[in-house]
Amino acid sequence: MSPTARLPAAARAVVGGDRRALARLITAVENHDPAALPDLRALYRRTGKARIIGLTGPLGVGKSSLINGLLALLRAQGLKVGVIAVDPSSPFSGGSVLGDRVRIERQVGDAGVFVRSMASRGHTGGVAATTREVCRLLDAFGLDVILVETVGSGQVDVEIREVATTSVVVLVPHLGDEVQSLKAGLFEIADVFCVNKADLAGADLAAKDLSELVSLGANPEGWRPAVVTTSTQTGTGLDVLWSAIDAHEQFLDTKDLRRLGERRRLAREIVALVRERVGRELTEALDRDPDLNRLLDGLVARTIDPYAAADRLYRDVRGKG
Amino acid sequence: MSPTARLPAAARAVVGGDRRALARLITAVENHDPAALPDLRALYRRTGKARIIGLTGPLGVGKSSLINGLLALLRAQGLKVGVIAVDPSSPFSGGSVLGDRVRIERQVGDAGVFVRSMASRGHTGGVAATTREVCRLLDAFGLDVILVETVGSGQVDVEIREVATTSVVVLVPHLGDEVQSLKAGLFEIADVFCVNKADLAGADLAAKDLSELVSLGANPEGWRPAVVTTSTQTGTGLDVLWSAIDAHEQFLDTKDLRRLGERRRLAREIVALVRERVGRELTEALDRDPDLNRLLDGLVARTIDPYAAADRLYRDVRGKG
Repeated sequence: MSPTARLPAAARAVVGGDRRALARLITAVENHDPAALPDLRALYRRTGKARIIGLTGPLGVGKSSLINGLLALLRAQGLKVGVIAVDPSSPFSGGSVLGDRVRIERQVGDAGVFVRSMASRGHTGGVAATTREVCRLLDAFGLDVILVETVGSGQVDVEIREVATTSVVVLVPHLGDEVQSLKAGLFEIADVFCVNKADLAGADLAAKDLSELVSLGANPEGWRPAVVTTSTQTGTGLDVLWSAIDAHEQFLDTKDLRRLGERRRLAREIVALVRERVGRELTEALDRDPDLNRLLDGLVARTIDPYAAADRLYRDVRGKG
Repeated sequence: MSPTARLPAAARAVVGGDRRALARLITAVENHDPAALPDLRALYRRTGKARIIGLTGPLGVGKSSLINGLLALLRAQGLKVGVIAVDPSSPFSGGSVLGDRVRIERQVGDAGVFVRSMASRGHTGGVAATTREVCRLLDAFGLDVILVETVGSGQVDVEIREVATTSVVVLVPHLGDEVQSLKAGLFEIADVFCVNKADLAGADLAAKDLSELVSLGANPEGWRPAVVTTSTQTGTGLDVLWSAIDAHEQFLDTKDLRRLGERRRLAREIVALVRERVGRELTEALDRDPDLNRLLDGLVARTIDPYAAADRLYRDVRGKG
């Protein structure tokens, strides 16, 4: 019996390199389709090989162009590359995102590339969970590197750390002045700072400011974020950017931080799954259960406060009612 | 015994009009300080009187200026007004927000006004919970109207509906072209559309586009969003904006939708409280419990998948282990 024979059909197709099966499973993940669960579960054991690289930063700094450049660089090294672009659901994001996206899509003819856009719909937590699951599918599909592009609330997506092994924060020169005010926030996110549009005035200054900031200390894991400058216009610096990413990936391996980081992320993931399930069940119970309906009436009437009501619900959950 | 005698000290001070006690309690809420819980619980029964009006929209559309204008209008009517400005934690938001904020703060000498800025820190869910609790404090303090300014991920904060009774989406003329692409998303949020900067070219067209969109139908509650144009430069339209907000507030009352909406929000709130508590307890258990530690090891080793591991955790929670 072949090692894939026991897999459910869609999972088997994905492992066998079927791009349409992969696309369909991704759609199922996006739609939270429970029918996909057996496939996702079966594919999990085939994950853990891909490097997942997050690129985050404000709109318009050129993340898509950078990904385009990295894609070409990595393909030239013979690596198979996936791209997940998490589109902010904002109707105000303008056309540049789409323009860049189209350029990436042109490479779709290449069998070693898989590109997927996902709408974020403003549900931050949910995006991280969906993105993580889609990364796993691309991982099981056999891609070596997965590049995740994301814009978060606050313009930098903190949640990328729940998905990526290396996170790149992309900035542009004219944001350099504000570097002093970022500090801790970005340090929590960035393994690599990338000052893009190095052809613009002020790029060196911005990089210098960031380097000074970085020189103040390492992050809690002992990694000192790298600062690189790139220009997607001229193609400069993409190799340096990849070297910096690669250096962080190697750092994770040598310090056993890859395993520890994955363990921490998995712990948060299963806690979130239980939390969501409990929440779903409670919401249903509040709709149905006459006792809980009276509890809600009491809340509206101010005869009980939300904390006391939550205590009551909690005891129900834990079977201590 | 006076009706406030049984209140904890800080709650009593808030009810008595002590602004510094109010400010301290708000800080405690922001810090999730458990010591504030008895005060929050005691104050809950003194809430439910204030109207909570949310203003959301992209950065730079003039939300703070609008709030400034509404503040003056409502004060002239003798209403006591609170302002909660949820600052996006973005280091990239630029100076305009701060500039507007300063203008609002100038009115702080007025005893009928209470202004508070809150950092959002990128935790969307948490912001809604904190904002709701702070609104309750201002409500118990005796303010009549609370204006909440917020920028969400995707530039429009969907979560405002978890807090506000009326939500205003603020846009500016040059965003009018994109109106067609917004549709459903904004309809879920807006009770009132406000096209600000009516002095700019294209304002009428933007308002017309929005009005056409709105004419396509009412929201699920049977309310057809109003479309108003304002100019904070000239002060035009602020009275019309407030009338539109007021009309929606009256609509809520006549249709018993205020009570139903509050009931739904409270249901979601207590479910969220239980969900968070379960999550916290599980996270602690995963740190401590040797069995659960082995579960995590199995996840990293791919001998168990996250869904099976979550099932196991869930049974622990429900006492069915």
